[in-house]
Amino acid sequence: MDFDYSPDCLAILDTLRKFIDRHVLPADTGWHRVAERGLYPTAVIEPLKLLAREAGLWNLFLPGLRAHEPGTGLTNLDYAPLAEMMGRIHWSSEVFNCSAPDTGNMELLHLFATHEQRERWLEPLLDGSIRSCFAMTEPDVASSDATNMRTSVRRDGDEVVINGRKWFATGAIHPHCRFAIVMGVSDESSCTAPHNRHSMVIVPMDTPGLSVLRNVTILGHHSPEEHCELLLRNVRVPASHLLGQEGQGFALAQARLGPGRVHHCMRTIGQCELALEMLCERALERRTFGKYLSDYSNVKDWIGHSRVEIDQARLLALRAAWRMDRHGNQAARVDVSAIKLVAAQLQQRVLDRAIQVFGAMGLTPDTPLAFLFTWGRAMRFFDGPDEVHLRVLAQDELGKAKRQRGSTAPYYRLAPEVAR
Amino acid sequence: MDFDYSPDCLAILDTLRKFIDRHVLPADTGWHRVAERGLYPTAVIEPLKLLAREAGLWNLFLPGLRAHEPGTGLTNLDYAPLAEMMGRIHWSSEVFNCSAPDTGNMELLHLFATHEQRERWLEPLLDGSIRSCFAMTEPDVASSDATNMRTSVRRDGDEVVINGRKWFATGAIHPHCRFAIVMGVSDESSCTAPHNRHSMVIVPMDTPGLSVLRNVTILGHHSPEEHCELLLRNVRVPASHLLGQEGQGFALAQARLGPGRVHHCMRTIGQCELALEMLCERALERRTFGKYLSDYSNVKDWIGHSRVEIDQARLLALRAAWRMDRHGNQAARVDVSAIKLVAAQLQQRVLDRAIQVFGAMGLTPDTPLAFLFTWGRAMRFFDGPDEVHLRVLAQDELGKAKRQRGSTAPYYRLAPEVAR
Amino acid sequence: MDFDYSPDCLAILDTLRKFIDRHVLPADTGWHRVAERGLYPTAVIEPLKLLAREAGLWNLFLPGLRAHEPGTGLTNLDYAPLAEMMGRIHWSSEVFNCSAPDTGNMELLHLFATHEQRERWLEPLLDGSIRSCFAMTEPDVASSDATNMRTSVRRDGDEVVINGRKWFATGAIHPHCRFAIVMGVSDESSCTAPHNRHSMVIVPMDTPGLSVLRNVTILGHHSPEEHCELLLRNVRVPASHLLGQEGQGFALAQARLGPGRVHHCMRTIGQCELALEMLCERALERRTFGKYLSDYSNVKDWIGHSRVEIDQARLLALRAAWRMDRHGNQAARVDVSAIKLVAAQLQQRVLDRAIQVFGAMGLTPDTPLAFLFTWGRAMRFFDGPDEVHLRVLAQDELGKAKRQRGSTAPYYRLAPEVAR
Amino acid sequence: MDFDYSPDCLAILDTLRKFIDRHVLPADTGWHRVAERGLYPTAVIEPLKLLAREAGLWNLFLPGLRAHEPGTGLTNLDYAPLAEMMGRIHWSSEVFNCSAPDTGNMELLHLFATHEQRERWLEPLLDGSIRSCFAMTEPDVASSDATNMRTSVRRDGDEVVINGRKWFATGAIHPHCRFAIVMGVSDESSCTAPHNRHSMVIVPMDTPGLSVLRNVTILGHHSPEEHCELLLRNVRVPASHLLGQEGQGFALAQARLGPGRVHHCMRTIGQCELALEMLCERALERRTFGKYLSDYSNVKDWIGHSRVEIDQARLLALRAAWRMDRHGNQAARVDVSAIKLVAAQLQQRVLDRAIQVFGAMGLTPDTPLAFLFTWGRAMRFFDGPDEVHLRVLAQDELGKAKRQRGSTAPYYRLAPEVAR
Repeated sequence: MDFDYSPDCLAILDTLRKFIDRHVLPADTGWHRVAERGLYPTAVIEPLKLLAREAGLWNLFLPGLRAHEPGTGLTNLDYAPLAEMMGRIHWSSEVFNCSAPDTGNMELLHLFATHEQRERWLEPLLDGSIRSCFAMTEPDVASSDATNMRTSVRRDGDEVVINGRKWFATGAIHPHCRFAIVMGVSDESSCTAPHNRHSMVIVPMDTPGLSVLRNVTILGHHSPEEHCELLLRNVRVPASHLLGQEGQGFALAQARLGPGRVHHCMRTIGQCELALEMLCERALERRTFGKYLSDYSNVKDWIGHSRVEIDQARLLALRAAWRMDRHGNQAARVDVSAIKLVAAQLQQRVLDRAIQVFGAMGLTPDTPLAFLFTWGRAMRFFDGPDEVHLRVLAQDELGKAKRQRGSTAPYYRLAPEVAR
Repeated sequence: MDFDYSPDCLAILDTLRKFIDRHVLPADTGWHRVAERGLYPTAVIEPLKLLAREAGLWNLFLPGLRAHEPGTGLTNLDYAPLAEMMGRIHWSSEVFNCSAPDTGNMELLHLFATHEQRERWLEPLLDGSIRSCFAMTEPDVASSDATNMRTSVRRDGDEVVINGRKWFATGAIHPHCRFAIVMGVSDESSCTAPHNRHSMVIVPMDTPGLSVLRNVTILGHHSPEEHCELLLRNVRVPASHLLGQEGQGFALAQARLGPGRVHHCMRTIGQCELALEMLCERALERRTFGKYLSDYSNVKDWIGHSRVEIDQARLLALRAAWRMDRHGNQAARVDVSAIKLVAAQLQQRVLDRAIQVFGAMGLTPDTPLAFLFTWGRAMRFFDGPDEVHLRVLAQDELGKAKRQRGSTAPYYRLAPEVAR
Repeated sequence: MDFDYSPDCLAILDTLRKFIDRHVLPADTGWHRVAERGLYPTAVIEPLKLLAREAGLWNLFLPGLRAHEPGTGLTNLDYAPLAEMMGRIHWSSEVFNCSAPDTGNMELLHLFATHEQRERWLEPLLDGSIRSCFAMTEPDVASSDATNMRTSVRRDGDEVVINGRKWFATGAIHPHCRFAIVMGVSDESSCTAPHNRHSMVIVPMDTPGLSVLRNVTILGHHSPEEHCELLLRNVRVPASHLLGQEGQGFALAQARLGPGRVHHCMRTIGQCELALEMLCERALERRTFGKYLSDYSNVKDWIGHSRVEIDQARLLALRAAWRMDRHGNQAARVDVSAIKLVAAQLQQRVLDRAIQVFGAMGLTPDTPLAFLFTWGRAMRFFDGPDEVHLRVLAQDELGKAKRQRGSTAPYYRLAPEVAR
Repeated sequence: MDFDYSPDCLAILDTLRKFIDRHVLPADTGWHRVAERGLYPTAVIEPLKLLAREAGLWNLFLPGLRAHEPGTGLTNLDYAPLAEMMGRIHWSSEVFNCSAPDTGNMELLHLFATHEQRERWLEPLLDGSIRSCFAMTEPDVASSDATNMRTSVRRDGDEVVINGRKWFATGAIHPHCRFAIVMGVSDESSCTAPHNRHSMVIVPMDTPGLSVLRNVTILGHHSPEEHCELLLRNVRVPASHLLGQEGQGFALAQARLGPGRVHHCMRTIGQCELALEMLCERALERRTFGKYLSDYSNVKDWIGHSRVEIDQARLLALRAAWRMDRHGNQAARVDVSAIKLVAAQLQQRVLDRAIQVFGAMGLTPDTPLAFLFTWGRAMRFFDGPDEVHLRVLAQDELGKAKRQRGSTAPYYRLAPEVAR
């Protein structure tokens, strides 16, 4: 057991920190000025991408790169602290070609794409010359239960016909977005097992029948990430656009989610660290009733709890990353649910405390806290709501209890006179 | 002791409910369509105001009306359930001329204005022909501690000169807003008691030197209420615009806050009731993993807790209103802090649960929940942050303990053999 | 609506307070010295009972007394503040013949006993010359679901034969305990509705076959109330000992619980008030790191939250009592669940805070806090666990939602372009 | 970074688990039968100690053993999982000579004792032939602030005279207890720094003037650990009984606490694991309203939260142990506060949930839960109350914020038009 980051990780972390301090942080206000006008800050991002790639800070998220793929090939464990660092500036992961949903899509394509698909879609993604979106969640139904999915992906000769409605397709109106990976029901037969009924298909954004209905606001505001509602009406693509096998969609979705969820969580932990730093600094300079806020014990309690909660969550996330590296994504399935649950709830607590210390200013756009607070509330749904992860955790624990039923019996101490 | 609403209250409540169902609710989507374009929905509101006034639903909030003032003259206790009803549609209180910050300003003017001030400012407010704003909170400082205030209100012959910066001046860019009541420091002498150093002054919105810097977003979005940042540079108004006596500003602020805070709380409770109704209805129709959400015991727990928490908060608010009516606003000071604390925290819990049951849809503008959730977070600062109210409550309780020091001694049971 | 206690209530409350201060509180240490030796403090209690009866403080709990029954005949609403006062000294309600489980048993007998049963069992209970116990909860099963009950109450000619095991039969080893009211299954036929299968029967404690197996410790200690485990083996009593009709047991249990639960809750609120008073007084005199605990804002937060939580719970309990008086116990069923849930959870929070302010002393028997803390944990099961009450509350709320299904539809604001 | 236990640790852990299953667990009921009669179960413990020593499971806790000291010499990190295992049976650590307060006393003596002191006191402790107690906490004052200490340790020629009163001296009435390490004020001069005023001294239990006043119950019951109140009246011991230097008491107390606190926490985590196992098994077999408790989603939520909270706390504790091994106890000071805070609060949550699933049985002595629940409440004071640890954490965090003041400034995004 060892709690030190590896020398490799530490070296890249240092490079990354310096890069962000030198190049990204100074561009932050400019990025927001553009974004507030409803535009995408391409002119801010693109030069930074070039610099990042030159600095070797590119595709850091993708483990097991192949020879011809650009990137660093870090383990999940070594990447995790980098994701935390990127989490401090919400838009920064795009600079390093490490932003969702592309990272998940790249992983999917990396694992399952045909040679042709790789050339057409994966390589430009790895190069950062295009972006993509992922269309899984549907309005009206509880999408955490995949059997609720209504979008149909129907084979019709050499083509696939897609009909349905999706939302929370993040990035669908990004100016570089070129394709969506759409998941739908390809086989409704009740003979087929529920988890073998779905398929994933690559749909170019300019395919007739695919339209972006709206960019849905999240808690009243537009996220820079743009969570879009898509309408798919008789959208036809060649059958060669199917990703993996027909009926394999559910398995692909699972494979996609493991590392991506941990990335999300580590970025979230980065948000929490930033919020705690801001809380402390603000508490040191803000006075009420003759004392600095940092002198109030209730504020100290918030700081103390935040510190231990963040540290615990980070350890849990790192262990999940370590387990994925060591034993595979499937073996870490429950660990991933654990950290997803913990990180989202943690973020809400820490951000709430930070806002409280900032006072009304914490509600304004003058600090990142307001955006992060609403992002965190949304994160309690992204990658599955709390309740789904609690369910996974409980089923796993109850499964263990069933397998060793009776093991707690020796701990009962029923008095002999009342033994039943 | 009696827990039934009075017949008067019940009668108006019934009228109000029907009015809202018939006239206001059908206009709700239209109101939002306009508001989303950044405009003020005057064309929606004004006809409704006429109808409301005709229906006798006007200035319901103002107790102790004088002969020439239009309105109903209800007690605080009888008004409280009406405020709850209005709280269900956020913008509806304007229809009945019962919306903040005008209500508080009308109370202030009703109590403290000169005859001239009443004619010029109070009467059009009571008529609903103009609106107003209230400028107290300042950026950078903790405004819950009034001694932090920096804006100066300096007497200069027959004039008063105001310099400073205010924010969260709600409604300052409403098209009908005609004046601000500005609070500032009129006497910095250390000989003057800290709570006798402030004054309030009426400043017409078109006074030179007064500018609206920006409409500050709250948690990333523009509220229909428009919380503005104001700059006051050498703003000069006649000394006759002073409200009450010089140095009385703090006392006026206190007088203003009592009933207004309880109104806010009752409207908040109306939001919570709506959210709980929506939660239940959604839980009855949404399915995951083979069951309706309403069949899950964790969802039932959220419902059960929401029910008892809302009911308790309402009783606490009603008792505060009753105490104001019976013993005066000052006697109810701690009661008002109590309900302000409770209602804001309650709202966050109930809204959070409702959003969780709605799933991602709860984040979108397709329901009122998203707006209400962020409004509720802001409410934890409006009218004083939680911590200020907790402090008031604790000081009061500790004061009682000091006065009866020793009263708990008989409850100790120190064994004689260890008596010290 | 009126929040003042009635003059009648206030008068008796004053008498009661003075009686307790003068007679009960000075006897408290003596009571505990005896109880700690495992004995019942009869010599302390009996003289106080005489005094109380002389002072007219007798059977205060029983509304609707008949001519020949001794007592005060208060409403539930007028009794509630008296119960709160008694709750401050755990054993004091026995002094006023107001202690569980006798109060519930007296209510049952008052409502359902035959003339003969009244003479033999109710009258001496009303006189305070005997005590009784109530045997409903069973080991091993979840007794909050009455269909789990296993004890059989079988008719055999003119007799009833009882077999089974009960626990948490409070007071079964009290030296004056003369009978148990035992609930069991009298009809296992699947044709009978599940709630018509139980009967209640009066079993004298000296009936052959009835034995007290043990006095079960609660969280490691013996309560003064003595929660006993009973074994019933072929216990035979005359059929005339059946209480009410055969098969009516479940309905009787419901009738018994309403007022008793509210009494429990008001006594609990009395505990909370005492704990808060002790907390405040201790905080005013205990110092760490150069300050009194009362100067720490986290301690102030605990005080403020305790104050508002207690006040809200009291209002909820009083409203439940008022509703029972006004509309009957059945109409107040959900209200009773509400206050039972709230009071038990409140008690744990307030006691926990008080102990934390006392430091290690809060764990010792030198104050009432240690006993109250464990009593409060047990109270989360007495009269039904939290989860059963949450279920009742949720079912009621969901029932309302079902009946007005569609009522929240007008609050949705789906944009026309995405209307589905 | 590596999350696997070391092979050494795993090997001993396996031996320990088998030993406990084979020898300790079967003796558990017997142990309690004796302890319930107020006796110390020597006849149960002593044979097990012999077996444990033979099995090499002896003094596992003490890192850096010297040549002549019996034991295993594990690192803190390797010992931690063993402490967790022992925590499952509360009394088992004594079997392995690993029980508080002896472990802390052995560490103190190991580090600071003179040759003579080692021979007389440390060696028999290491052999398990005697036990000891530690007298630091005092009644009436907040002992978490050492400057509140009142017991005097005054030099008088070749002797030291001790006067004062201590409580929570765990184990003082253990039949083998031979000495107390007493901490007191040896120098009240205001010229001396507050943390150089205390001394520790070894006081044989049979020294005249030392008396055990009482064995204080904790939350109403006697712990097997026996937390005693001691009176010291003119207790005289030779000056050679001073431990370390005069005035060094505070530093010694700090040194003593680090590893001991982590042991306590790991044992606590063992309690939580056991409680969660019992919860799951009980939930699988207990039915209400037609379903097993394990089918209820609120119970699943409790399981899921317990799982992630326990896992996080364990990682935090292990990291604290690792940091002590790697960087010394002083460097891990804040880590130790962190895990002390987390573990105590975790235990209360997990035990509360387990009891709730058990129903009333969870309150009885028929399972370990009742004892553990009260132990956990007490643990929130042992080794410092929550608030002291929160303070340590916050001071550390605020210290960092002060040192890097200004570092969060680049994250503010004040719009230029409102820049102040």
